[in-house]
Amino acid sequence: MDNQLINELKEKFNIVFRDVSLLEQAFTHSSYVNEHRNLQLSDNERLEFLGDAVLELLVSRFLYNQFPTVPEGRLTKLRAAIVREDSLAKFAKECHFDRYIRLGKGEENSGGRNRPSLLCDLFESFLGALYLDQGLKAVHEFLGKIVFPKVKAGAFSHEMDHKTRLQEVLQRSGDVLIDYRLVKEEGPAHERLFWTEVFCDGQLIGKGHGKSKKLAEQDAAANALGHLEE
Amino acid sequence: MDNQLINELKEKFNIVFRDVSLLEQAFTHSSYVNEHRNLQLSDNERLEFLGDAVLELLVSRFLYNQFPTVPEGRLTKLRAAIVREDSLAKFAKECHFDRYIRLGKGEENSGGRNRPSLLCDLFESFLGALYLDQGLKAVHEFLGKIVFPKVKAGAFSHEMDHKTRLQEVLQRSGDVLIDYRLVKEEGPAHERLFWTEVFCDGQLIGKGHGKSKKLAEQDAAANALGHLEE
Repeated sequence: MDNQLINELKEKFNIVFRDVSLLEQAFTHSSYVNEHRNLQLSDNERLEFLGDAVLELLVSRFLYNQFPTVPEGRLTKLRAAIVREDSLAKFAKECHFDRYIRLGKGEENSGGRNRPSLLCDLFESFLGALYLDQGLKAVHEFLGKIVFPKVKAGAFSHEMDHKTRLQEVLQRSGDVLIDYRLVKEEGPAHERLFWTEVFCDGQLIGKGHGKSKKLAEQDAAANALGHLEE
Repeated sequence: MDNQLINELKEKFNIVFRDVSLLEQAFTHSSYVNEHRNLQLSDNERLEFLGDAVLELLVSRFLYNQFPTVPEGRLTKLRAAIVREDSLAKFAKECHFDRYIRLGKGEENSGGRNRPSLLCDLFESFLGALYLDQGLKAVHEFLGKIVFPKVKAGAFSHEMDHKTRLQEVLQRSGDVLIDYRLVKEEGPAHERLFWTEVFCDGQLIGKGHGKSKKLAEQDAAANALGHLEE
């Protein structure tokens, strides 16, 4: 196994594998196995199968706890944004995993080392190996360094609507009461207009209007976000 | 909360919730919440979001351990068959969960209590509640009563091909070496025919032939299964 990888994992993440063969397997692409049949290696695909599910659970649990009042539909969108291919490929690169994956020559020559799908699989198989070696808690801690801080910082929140985003921003430092109040409605039924204000712990933080109550609330949330993010 | 449900869970599965409000939430459909706004209830959708991921991990881990040599592609197919809507709806019915879900009147009248999507969500939200209340191990034990025995008995194996199915059957009682040997090939290139034999720990258990090595192996596996399952 590449000592550089072992050192990097130790120094950056304080991760030391008990069973190094699991780590080795996580960094072995099927193309490498196919080109070295005499070595009787195992590729990382079964670990990826497992790691994918480990990631899904830990991200779900994190979102569930982090956003205690966000409805299921938005949690699902956010989770999808976090675990999708290009996100995971970026995490893998950030950990320098691309440097250590063992590829067959054909795969190497066709640029496999930079292919998002390959890097995404690699990230998941690393998680699978870490899970088998050290359990769920160790994977949770690793994700707490690589993934969760980005979620807290709002890196995936463009997937949410303004109201959810506002809730996320305001609840970053603790529970607050967010309250939308309809302050006015005008006009005939077919072109009625609604005015809404949004309050955080009783303090007015944004105003909006729209052709429905829902749109007026979204508008107020966007308005509040504009002030907050100035 | 319905005492009948509490009793059934205790008697059938030896499950006693510490926080009964979680169990209550798992059995509360959004249609019920909408019809009883004054009660300020929470529906089961966020628990379903979590339970879905808990199920995914536990089924993945079970399959990973149960089928130590089955490739990732087939594990993925098998997992999908186990966690799909109609499978989960059946599990929910088997546990009598359909009797206890709280529905709004509209949902009840339109047959919601028997709708697979609703029962599937209910099964997942129950798992989410159990996970929050008692951790992963408790959910694993529950699935060990309701789901895993069926997988071991081959209830989902029609999702696999004959070779995978054969492997599964033979490895049920421990690791064995399964070996396909090409014993003959005949005919011109464009209509060549292959004969294969399959051995289990060195003993011939099936014969097959086909227009490719792959098809001949599948045929031999099906032949072996025929003998084994007689």
